[in-house]
Amino acid sequence: MKSFTILILAIAVGLTILAALPFAPGHAEDEATPIFGGKLPDGYRDWGLISVAHEEGSLNDLRAILGNDVAIKAYREGKLPFPDGTIIARVAWSYVPSEENNKVFGRRQSFVAGLPTNVQFMVKDSRKYASTGGWGFAQFNDGKPAAEVVPSACFSCHEPAKARDFVFTRYAP
Amino acid sequence: MKSFTILILAIAVGLTILAALPFAPGHAEDEATPIFGGKLPDGYRDWGLISVAHEEGSLNDLRAILGNDVAIKAYREGKLPFPDGTIIARVAWSYVPSEENNKVFGRRQSFVAGLPTNVQFMVKDSRKYASTGGWGFAQFNDGKPAAEVVPSACFSCHEPAKARDFVFTRYAP
Repeated sequence: MKSFTILILAIAVGLTILAALPFAPGHAEDEATPIFGGKLPDGYRDWGLISVAHEEGSLNDLRAILGNDVAIKAYREGKLPFPDGTIIARVAWSYVPSEENNKVFGRRQSFVAGLPTNVQFMVKDSRKYASTGGWGFAQFNDGKPAAEVVPSACFSCHEPAKARDFVFTRYAP
Repeated sequence: MKSFTILILAIAVGLTILAALPFAPGHAEDEATPIFGGKLPDGYRDWGLISVAHEEGSLNDLRAILGNDVAIKAYREGKLPFPDGTIIARVAWSYVPSEENNKVFGRRQSFVAGLPTNVQFMVKDSRKYASTGGWGFAQFNDGKPAAEVVPSACFSCHEPAKARDFVFTRYAP
């Protein structure tokens, strides 16, 4: 009976700790000013290609990293830090096998872009976003700003890439 | 001793058959006119993104399909067949894990573009390339036309996509 009481106490303590933890990523009031006025930037889908990637795991996507003219120029010139006005977009689609392509290749080897997932942006304004390395971060789900994504959480994951101005993606020639 | 003679004969016959087989894809004299005058078309790397893909197997690449303005417009308008002047480029890079990204995600899940492999093109000229569905095909290795790649061989693999004007890739929104 004594061990049962200890078990109950342990569960209660565990739940208390759990309740005290912030949801990741949390929502901070001071980060609520919407980037791009809460709208997808005009013509981002036409921007130049920086590189491509595949993320497995829960993301399970194929992604393209696009950049506006300022971004592409900075990348090609190897300019760091990226100048103000740089915008980098990450577009992504679900990772799906292509039966049609596999038939042609004669084996299961081809994976293509399925439905779009979400679109993320990094926008450089060294004054406005000084607290997050000069970068503003945003995510759009179905064309609408994702309220659950906050810049400070994005930034903390980007910090290991500090030597490249917090940008992981390299230009693919 | 008799079975040894039969074995030698069998090997000789095998080698003779092998020598008679053409290299795949073969080189046809009448297909030798170089596309784009044997040079990579200006600015193709800046073209708009049509979609992305991952090919496993011996290719083992991440690829982006880009299109010139004529191609992008036709895709967005769902225009088939593609008009003359359409050029579609397939750029590809080796598929490599990113240890740097994996560290951030806390698991092995990230694959990025490594070294470039080659660049392939489809160019629409319904008169010039009438014998291959109106499409000219080309591949460039290190910026130079790949002599071993002939349009008829490319076309035969593209035939299953006849309903979409022999183009496999769909536009990724």
